[in-house]
Amino acid sequence: MAATVGALATPALLLDKDRLDRNLDRLSSRMAARDVVLRPHMKTAKSIDVARRAHRSGPGPITVSTLAEAEYFARHGFRDMTYAVGLAPHAAERAVRLQKAGIDLKVLLDSPEQGMLLGVAGHAAGVTPSAFIEIDCDGHRGGLTATDPKLIAVAAALAEAGVKLAGVLTHAGESYSLCTPEALVAAAENERAAAVATAATLRTAGHACPIVSVGSTPTAHFADDLTGITEMRAGVYMFFDLVMHGVGVCTTDDIAISVLATVIGTKAAKGWILVDAGWMALSRDRGTAAQRVDQGYGLVCDLSGKIYPDLIVAQASQEHGILAIRSGSAQALPDLSIGAKVRILPNHACATASQHELYNVVSAGSDAIEARWPRMRGW
Amino acid sequence: MAATVGALATPALLLDKDRLDRNLDRLSSRMAARDVVLRPHMKTAKSIDVARRAHRSGPGPITVSTLAEAEYFARHGFRDMTYAVGLAPHAAERAVRLQKAGIDLKVLLDSPEQGMLLGVAGHAAGVTPSAFIEIDCDGHRGGLTATDPKLIAVAAALAEAGVKLAGVLTHAGESYSLCTPEALVAAAENERAAAVATAATLRTAGHACPIVSVGSTPTAHFADDLTGITEMRAGVYMFFDLVMHGVGVCTTDDIAISVLATVIGTKAAKGWILVDAGWMALSRDRGTAAQRVDQGYGLVCDLSGKIYPDLIVAQASQEHGILAIRSGSAQALPDLSIGAKVRILPNHACATASQHELYNVVSAGSDAIEARWPRMRGW
Repeated sequence: MAATVGALATPALLLDKDRLDRNLDRLSSRMAARDVVLRPHMKTAKSIDVARRAHRSGPGPITVSTLAEAEYFARHGFRDMTYAVGLAPHAAERAVRLQKAGIDLKVLLDSPEQGMLLGVAGHAAGVTPSAFIEIDCDGHRGGLTATDPKLIAVAAALAEAGVKLAGVLTHAGESYSLCTPEALVAAAENERAAAVATAATLRTAGHACPIVSVGSTPTAHFADDLTGITEMRAGVYMFFDLVMHGVGVCTTDDIAISVLATVIGTKAAKGWILVDAGWMALSRDRGTAAQRVDQGYGLVCDLSGKIYPDLIVAQASQEHGILAIRSGSAQALPDLSIGAKVRILPNHACATASQHELYNVVSAGSDAIEARWPRMRGW
Repeated sequence: MAATVGALATPALLLDKDRLDRNLDRLSSRMAARDVVLRPHMKTAKSIDVARRAHRSGPGPITVSTLAEAEYFARHGFRDMTYAVGLAPHAAERAVRLQKAGIDLKVLLDSPEQGMLLGVAGHAAGVTPSAFIEIDCDGHRGGLTATDPKLIAVAAALAEAGVKLAGVLTHAGESYSLCTPEALVAAAENERAAAVATAATLRTAGHACPIVSVGSTPTAHFADDLTGITEMRAGVYMFFDLVMHGVGVCTTDDIAISVLATVIGTKAAKGWILVDAGWMALSRDRGTAAQRVDQGYGLVCDLSGKIYPDLIVAQASQEHGILAIRSGSAQALPDLSIGAKVRILPNHACATASQHELYNVVSAGSDAIEARWPRMRGW
């Protein structure tokens, strides 16, 4: 295995540990100051090593996006988890198995049917399952709206099915499409208000609603008043990415992951430099296409991480990336010849990291690979 | 492990063996009739089991997109391979190690520098490396144009560096953006003409040019006259997908892979059905967005594989897909409740399959999972 970045076979995923730690500290300080529990979403990193850095004093609360993640983190000592995807029947059985093994796994649902099937699975296994009611605060995907009359019906179904109501959970998914501080502050307040209102409705109807959970990386960083909120969930804040930069939550200097690539050809007449990182290494994510600055498939830096102004991955096929100067820019193409190495900042850290098996961990100002942290995958 | 499709945890990747075999036979018959060697591109399937079906009488010629693929197929007995991505310095050393181990691995380059670094690596290892000169037939990415004066310089550099010239190789990448038989026939002829012309130029200059290699799935199926061509490369023809359907190379009944998903919620007022397959299971590929019919993130079928008319995956987040009727259609949303299962045909088989660890192999008309074929990944 290569000991330095310069000696790595490409494409390869790099993780800047200093930036990671800074990002982790930023949000955990923010939440500590507001007395809100931070429940990091592990869907971005999918790595026990990253989870341990997010919870330095030992396993703490986490969010997961698949039951395979829940099983993986359970094997590594994490016990307090929320599976934040609406419950399917086969998932209920698997969640209950984790519960039976002593894991405090809270699931997510928004219908009486899901409550009943979870209750049946719990009863069969001899455990009391625990579920959040999903609240839809901005029309983004699943969940009940804050005023949906079904809210009480779902809570009643849980009680009848012998399922513990963990609380309410909402996610301001629409915040990813915003780009001004004012709009982000408003989205955060909207998210808070929906969660707090539904918790109040449930409590008034006699249902205990211990956890009031909100979160998205943009709203987590722009929420000021979190009155009534008990926990915050966020995932991509650990690594950040160009989409988050476009939203205005981070600078490019905060982006902790990058894809190392090697120049494999040039086409001077077209203004192209070809590299060996295509969509297999970068992902097909084009999240910046809808933002003010379209970053193509990524923004290109030199080996030290310094950005080449306006040099982006303009096109990507499976294993080829075409670097070019952003259209409209007067920048010159840098002089990069066969074998030169570059680092590419990703549009969407969750998608790009998922294309790789491990993180090559580096620190700013050093060429040494300090560690290799594996990622888990699958469902 | 589940024995039936109905019992599988979702999301999961299904591979219809009958469709796979039919697709394999279709192109191999076509090439046999033209006396052209078929060198399947394994970048789509990345599976030894699929490679064995493509070459039933034993290991035959294949194309690979990474050196990890080359090493994987070498471990499984394949010896005649082309690595069809422009050569990087670290790749030259690794390719030469395979050559030293008795693998006939041909690499791809388009500059004298790459020829020299390959020669140096070969000399150090005591082997004679073998390389194709990459030809650019349609401005798609790398390679020399058919009339580029550097062609002879590259061939001379190979000879001087002690590298064997395997031949010329081109890829009609622009064919993926076409959609009429006339345009596809013309693209195939353009691809053929560029390869044949450069082979002639090299031969006239005294360079042996044994292999004249072309290929893309669309041109492979629309080329009629292949005079002067010795081999055809194609990959996605094994599985096909919605992009290839939009190009006009296959019907939806030919698409051999699909993603099994479970309904986890409904939003009748919005015309939405939520499933547990998002971009992590489907990929972020939106290749049909630029075609006449935009299929969203995929076209939805029932458990038996029958298409729900105009029902597409309209939106995808990491683990959520939102099914909706295509805009402009008068079709009604099917009545699918929590726990119902659907199969989703992918935009781009290479991208979707790469999100999964294995193929659940099925046959038409049966719920049984006949086999599980692992996929390899990484570089």
